Amino acid sequence: MDSIKVFAPATVANVVCGYDILGFAIEEPGDEIILRKNDSNQIIITKIEGDNGKLPKDPKKNVVSHVIRLFLEKINSNQGIDIELYKKMPLNSGMGSSAASSVAALVAINELMGKPFSKQELLPLAMEGERIACGNAHADNVAPALLGGLVLVRSYEPLDALKLPYPKDLSVVSVHPHVDVPTGEARKIIKERISLKSAVQQWGNVAGLVAGFCNNDLGLVSRSMEDVIIEPVRAMLIPYFYEMKQLALDNSAIGFGISGSGPSVFALCEKKEIAEEISFKIKELLNQKNIESEAFVTKINDEGARVIY
Amino acid sequence: MDSIKVFAPATVANVVCGYDILGFAIEEPGDEIILRKNDSNQIIITKIEGDNGKLPKDPKKNVVSHVIRLFLEKINSNQGIDIELYKKMPLNSGMGSSAASSVAALVAINELMGKPFSKQELLPLAMEGERIACGNAHADNVAPALLGGLVLVRSYEPLDALKLPYPKDLSVVSVHPHVDVPTGEARKIIKERISLKSAVQQWGNVAGLVAGFCNNDLGLVSRSMEDVIIEPVRAMLIPYFYEMKQLALDNSAIGFGISGSGPSVFALCEKKEIAEEISFKIKELLNQKNIESEAFVTKINDEGARVIY
Repeated sequence: MDSIKVFAPATVANVVCGYDILGFAIEEPGDEIILRKNDSNQIIITKIEGDNGKLPKDPKKNVVSHVIRLFLEKINSNQGIDIELYKKMPLNSGMGSSAASSVAALVAINELMGKPFSKQELLPLAMEGERIACGNAHADNVAPALLGGLVLVRSYEPLDALKLPYPKDLSVVSVHPHVDVPTGEARKIIKERISLKSAVQQWGNVAGLVAGFCNNDLGLVSRSMEDVIIEPVRAMLIPYFYEMKQLALDNSAIGFGISGSGPSVFALCEKKEIAEEISFKIKELLNQKNIESEAFVTKINDEGARVIY
Repeated sequence: MDSIKVFAPATVANVVCGYDILGFAIEEPGDEIILRKNDSNQIIITKIEGDNGKLPKDPKKNVVSHVIRLFLEKINSNQGIDIELYKKMPLNSGMGSSAASSVAALVAINELMGKPFSKQELLPLAMEGERIACGNAHADNVAPALLGGLVLVRSYEPLDALKLPYPKDLSVVSVHPHVDVPTGEARKIIKERISLKSAVQQWGNVAGLVAGFCNNDLGLVSRSMEDVIIEPVRAMLIPYFYEMKQLALDNSAIGFGISGSGPSVFALCEKKEIAEEISFKIKELLNQKNIESEAFVTKINDEGARVIY
């Protein structure tokens, strides 16, 4: 095998009360990558499309070439690789753009080199991609992008990421308002100390959310989709957040929240028709406020990154 | 019906990482109460056994007569009641002694008065019993004592308590070392503010614990039974806590923790034989240290409070 094409999906991390521990993959959008072996011993980015020129092509600074280099070092290979990256989702949007690229690159290089590792074993490398992309090796985007489905990152030391059951027919609306909220900034405004009282409220909701997903109890999922710690702070950075939330809940969303660190938002819905309506109404609201946006109505992607050919 | 006898079980609250939100009932020990209608319009405590004279017999200060009075006020009744309370578990032990008494009283008076309320509807009244017993209307003892099984108190405002699935054949060891740790003191030493980092660790473990119980994944339950916030503080009040914990884990306990606010401790075990061995070894350890103790090897009580006759 001399070349390969892989898709990796966008993800919703920090699922409402599940800050830093819960994320899920969605069917679309996602990134595609093509890798080809070359004879030069070098990792060369030959093409990046869809980033409006924003991603570094210098292989020492690019997430994709970084994780490929880490992978090849791990197997003591000096194989040369040509990379074509097709960004099919917005950067810095809260939809796990860097995670999708890292994961696509790792799944592709793993296949190309004879699949020495399982997806779970690729996870720590994918987290290193996040470290250079946003300064923090968090796993709640890369783990669902890699494994698919709804993923719990129970612990970082030792790393323990696992797929949770969830009702298979849920629909998801993701809306990306075109406003700038750099991930680093969004992290910085979170307080380092919180009250025990609000922490107890949060883990009560985390427990309810997980139980609701595991037992197919959408009423419980809905009641538990409440974030008393992160959302009140980060919502300030997202124009019309509470108006969008009210709109979604008034139109029968199971729950609504910030996707990752924003500015994208998402709604979880029982049916596609509900999701379509909420998507339309939120776009309409933002349009009235002169904010451009793009919206995706999709489902949870249970497979994660996959080989296209 | 002019008289009734009811049993309500001991409970393990604050299940390791599930501080203030998770509790379960155990088969034994538990309290028994006998109520008899009288013609006096008064609530009279005629007998308390098993408390070594420690509980107040003044009906204005006693938890049992307090919740019965609240119940009768709620249904606008001035029925007179004679109360016999049989304490069959240690007071101030962390095993939910006051909760068992309140719950037994409420289930009994509810039956005696024609069952106007469901168990769920009795919960707020039972919480009022906790308020006068320990200054805080918490629900993680009364809810499992009432409903049975493993109970999540997801939220207090509004109150949302629900039974979670769990593997039915688990065994539980509860050990009560005879040392004094008043509940109020144990609450006071908990810090009011915690780091976000440790809160994230805690809700990662809460999510894992709930997922493990719901999906019968004992490995996950075991990995998740870690408390980075409350245990490190309260364990200091329980002599030889870490020695007992190590003993339990070395002897194949799924997990080990403080029961309620202590000084009782508990171990969750896959089999009765394991539980028996851990019980024996912990008692032996405490005995060597000249600390008297009593131990119970039992199962999770799925029924909660029940009418005996």
